[in-house]
Amino acid sequence: MLKFYFDLMSQPSRALYIFLKVTKIPVEFVKIDLKKAEHLTDEFKAVNRFQKVPCIVDGDFQLSESVAIFRYLIETRNGVAENWYPKELKTRALVDEFLEYQHNAVRLPCAMYFQTKFLIPIFSGKPVNEERVRSFKKQMENSLDALENIWLQSTEKEFLATKEISFADVLAACELEQPKMAGYNTFEGRPKLTKWYERVKEVTNPYYDEAHVIVNKVIQKNKSKL
Amino acid sequence: MLKFYFDLMSQPSRALYIFLKVTKIPVEFVKIDLKKAEHLTDEFKAVNRFQKVPCIVDGDFQLSESVAIFRYLIETRNGVAENWYPKELKTRALVDEFLEYQHNAVRLPCAMYFQTKFLIPIFSGKPVNEERVRSFKKQMENSLDALENIWLQSTEKEFLATKEISFADVLAACELEQPKMAGYNTFEGRPKLTKWYERVKEVTNPYYDEAHVIVNKVIQKNKSKL
Repeated sequence: MLKFYFDLMSQPSRALYIFLKVTKIPVEFVKIDLKKAEHLTDEFKAVNRFQKVPCIVDGDFQLSESVAIFRYLIETRNGVAENWYPKELKTRALVDEFLEYQHNAVRLPCAMYFQTKFLIPIFSGKPVNEERVRSFKKQMENSLDALENIWLQSTEKEFLATKEISFADVLAACELEQPKMAGYNTFEGRPKLTKWYERVKEVTNPYYDEAHVIVNKVIQKNKSKL
Repeated sequence: MLKFYFDLMSQPSRALYIFLKVTKIPVEFVKIDLKKAEHLTDEFKAVNRFQKVPCIVDGDFQLSESVAIFRYLIETRNGVAENWYPKELKTRALVDEFLEYQHNAVRLPCAMYFQTKFLIPIFSGKPVNEERVRSFKKQMENSLDALENIWLQSTEKEFLATKEISFADVLAACELEQPKMAGYNTFEGRPKLTKWYERVKEVTNPYYDEAHVIVNKVIQKNKSKL
């Protein structure tokens, strides 16, 4: 049985969790609690040498990196609807283009904004480094504007790379939740991105909301504070 | 005819240049001079909406992101030796694991070390921001240690993910050249990485050196200064 190791506070963990639930790939879900540092144990190091989530174990085969895991599952599991990773080579290449683009253009600034503005001050007890927050905010806003004005520019497709939803959309949506926990609404003032976000949730619910229960609690809690 | 747009000062441009030369995929090489801001023209924007290199145009199909381009070429071109992207699914997944890992773990700190230590001071005329250099240097050294002690740990394989060379190795080697231009030898004190680097050059030469003529000139020039 395939084992999936995850923590729902991790963006790519949530994306794979939603993908696995929607596609009903048979899998055992194994929670690794990052807050309890369960990823730093020797036991988990034997599962993933990089000691990060998400990762999988399939028989004796170990694999990390969400996008690599996604591609491996597409190739080795039957019955996954084609829209998640189209077989037509040019359409597939456009999904790949986003999957590679997002690492530094989307994930990095969104995660770093969340960390510098919210996570690091809480865990270190030190004041917010406002200069770093400003720098990541600027990068993040450039990135969000590129999603709104370049990726979602075409009227021929409803999703980032394709007409129907692909894994690119789920991965991106999960990354865009992270800054909301630090009080920044990534969708406000971006109408195309807002509509796209609603479509992603519509296609993937109830699993999208299920993956975001804790994240949404943090967002609600911080709305009043920030 | 496939068109490949590149500048040899860009790490992923060099990796694809070497891959295209070694595999002899029929292609027209189109130089985009970043120093002359040729990527910022309207003419080039019509080729790549993100105005970055590398990118390709195949008939009327446009694609950016080096890893996505690599995968598209593997799927659409015949006669590429299997070692570059193994067909066996688990071996392929391990190449994918590195291709996804490298964006933030290798490319980012190496590129940012080079930029903050060397490129930004030259172009802005401002003094080096030593705090940022130190931060990226630390990230970079963690990353280089992970290559040495985790990726190259197994004695069963001579390359990062596989027994024979794959695209993962070429992409990584090109990223590791960048900090050398800022006077940091990424291989010094890392014997496994040094031997791996020699193997990568051995398999890909004369094209590896051909792609690094200008980079090597900068490295030589700055050796005496730094």
